[in-house]
Amino acid sequence: MSKRVFVLAPDSFKESMTAKEACTAMEKGLRKVFPEAEYVHVPMADGGEGTVQSLVDASGGKIFEKVVKGPLGQPVTAKFGILGDGVTGAIEMAAASGIHHVTPETKNPLITSTYGTGELIRECLDRGIKRIIIGTGGSATNDGGTGMAAALGAKFLDEAGQELPHGGGSLNRLTRIDVSALDRRLGELELIVACDVANPLCGEHGASRVFGPQKGATPPMVEQLDSNLAHYAKVVKQQLGKDVRDVPGAGAAGGLGAGLLSFTQAKLQKGIEIVIEYTELKRHIARADYVFTGEGGIDFQTKFGKTPYGVARMAKEAGKKVIAVAGYIGEGIDTLYDIGIDAVFGIVPGAQELQKVLVEGPQNVERTCENIARVLKFNR
Amino acid sequence: MSKRVFVLAPDSFKESMTAKEACTAMEKGLRKVFPEAEYVHVPMADGGEGTVQSLVDASGGKIFEKVVKGPLGQPVTAKFGILGDGVTGAIEMAAASGIHHVTPETKNPLITSTYGTGELIRECLDRGIKRIIIGTGGSATNDGGTGMAAALGAKFLDEAGQELPHGGGSLNRLTRIDVSALDRRLGELELIVACDVANPLCGEHGASRVFGPQKGATPPMVEQLDSNLAHYAKVVKQQLGKDVRDVPGAGAAGGLGAGLLSFTQAKLQKGIEIVIEYTELKRHIARADYVFTGEGGIDFQTKFGKTPYGVARMAKEAGKKVIAVAGYIGEGIDTLYDIGIDAVFGIVPGAQELQKVLVEGPQNVERTCENIARVLKFNR
Repeated sequence: MSKRVFVLAPDSFKESMTAKEACTAMEKGLRKVFPEAEYVHVPMADGGEGTVQSLVDASGGKIFEKVVKGPLGQPVTAKFGILGDGVTGAIEMAAASGIHHVTPETKNPLITSTYGTGELIRECLDRGIKRIIIGTGGSATNDGGTGMAAALGAKFLDEAGQELPHGGGSLNRLTRIDVSALDRRLGELELIVACDVANPLCGEHGASRVFGPQKGATPPMVEQLDSNLAHYAKVVKQQLGKDVRDVPGAGAAGGLGAGLLSFTQAKLQKGIEIVIEYTELKRHIARADYVFTGEGGIDFQTKFGKTPYGVARMAKEAGKKVIAVAGYIGEGIDTLYDIGIDAVFGIVPGAQELQKVLVEGPQNVERTCENIARVLKFNR
Repeated sequence: MSKRVFVLAPDSFKESMTAKEACTAMEKGLRKVFPEAEYVHVPMADGGEGTVQSLVDASGGKIFEKVVKGPLGQPVTAKFGILGDGVTGAIEMAAASGIHHVTPETKNPLITSTYGTGELIRECLDRGIKRIIIGTGGSATNDGGTGMAAALGAKFLDEAGQELPHGGGSLNRLTRIDVSALDRRLGELELIVACDVANPLCGEHGASRVFGPQKGATPPMVEQLDSNLAHYAKVVKQQLGKDVRDVPGAGAAGGLGAGLLSFTQAKLQKGIEIVIEYTELKRHIARADYVFTGEGGIDFQTKFGKTPYGVARMAKEAGKKVIAVAGYIGEGIDTLYDIGIDAVFGIVPGAQELQKVLVEGPQNVERTCENIARVLKFNR
């Protein structure tokens, strides 16, 4: 019998393990039963938190840090990655401009800015990066990506020709966008935006109404921000010739989607698809006997673009068996069988507090995978 | 392919499901994947709590109730069973004389009595029962089984010929045992005592020292009770010609083991072995393709005579695969693989409070078994 190949393609187990650590735990368990097998680690992500780490881990790349402006202008140390190919950068906008950089007291989407995200893009350009993958989850901002563009040289001016203060709250006064100093390297940069929301920039389903409240916007602030972004889109259309207002995903990350579409050669794509592509998952799966995936939580929502869904769909195309493990199994997992997840197992050993579950994640994944392997071995 | 046979032989999941309910949940899950299979329910127990229910369920017997004297003489409604054969009774001593019938305030092993257990034996005799299986776990008593014997006609007399009060506390005054009125039917009764402890009646490993404290005995009470039981054993030996003091298991249930050995044709046996015999597990397993077992908790202690151990050992003899599920997986389950449990899966879907875990036991067993079945199906 030829050597059995296990492809291990979990997402991170949030607050418990990175995807890479989950791969390691899976292999430890499986290897007890199949010591001779080959284990291919493909740490995954879906475009959300952990995407940079997974892309770096899967490609043999490297994590870097840079001090940039946080959402309130304060210095924050933000991580970003360069993939193993040396020419692809990976940024999570939340690293610079995320909601975790503000407090319940300081969060204020009228003034929070994506400036730091722009600084990270510039840093990548300075390092010779030709392509950037950018994740849009967890933003603290509602500035339409104007801060990001400003960090790359764009100027947002009022009637008097003065630069506007940071944040979506002042965009009603936007009169002119000066792109004369915009970083020219952006013209050559391939920018792939991991975006799983289809929200337009404005209106009922727009960034301000849907995501504003969780960033601290009161109802009057929501109205103001929505109206300001609409004005901003109008100016962009008039002066830059780009109509981004109703593009699905323009409303991602407080309108950063719109900003990237307006000022860069951005292409919006589902996060999981990007990760599948840049981890070369398809090529790995082609060799697999079994594919293991997993995530902190698995439930009916998994089929809306989460990692186990993406992995299972790809594996199903290749006719492979997929087993998922999860720290939490929620409602409706029956519906996952249809999309190609052949079996799902919880890893938690009993009634326990979350803290213990999180700390013991790796050993629980290991034990569960070992026992799954013991069953897989029955018919060999 | 001939019809696949699943033997479902779990213990109860304490405070969550009876063994029978666990069988039902297992079948529900497995049947989703193998709708054509045959499912043989063998609700199990290990001689502890739930043994009567399991023996009754496995044999198609019936549960009865009788009001008897509790450990403190108070009336308690005690359940007992008659197996499907109509001639075998099943009693858990705790039903009449268990620790749950006393409170932290009222527990007092000087006075608690096994009288009610004797009443249950008498009730079985009145119903024409020829054989009784009696479980010894969870007692509130330390009376050497004198209460039990008294309910069946034995008299425990002091020097003045007066009957002693109930409880181990007065046995120092025991002068004479009058068995002239002892129920003569006991001579024909086969009495099988489910006993998993090897403790003798007295001494360092005796009933009083090892189990007295958990029944409320203070250190001086422990000394008194141990000395009293030694005296009792001496009188039994002198007057009944039975030397029970150092028989392994004589110390079970506060010395009820010794009492049964002294006054009946009792045979002590491991609980799981009795249950295996009376559920005809061996015959069922001979037909099985897969054997499923389980219990509320599984850990290294499982191999000391718990149900999944007994089931696995029997299945291993027959060369069958055994899969266990548990509400709680503890330390050292690696050691279970050697004794024939091929794989163990937890059923809990995530970090949860015990109460929720207990309430949702059946659906968790069902989901877990369904997913195990989905993996079993891979190689078919």
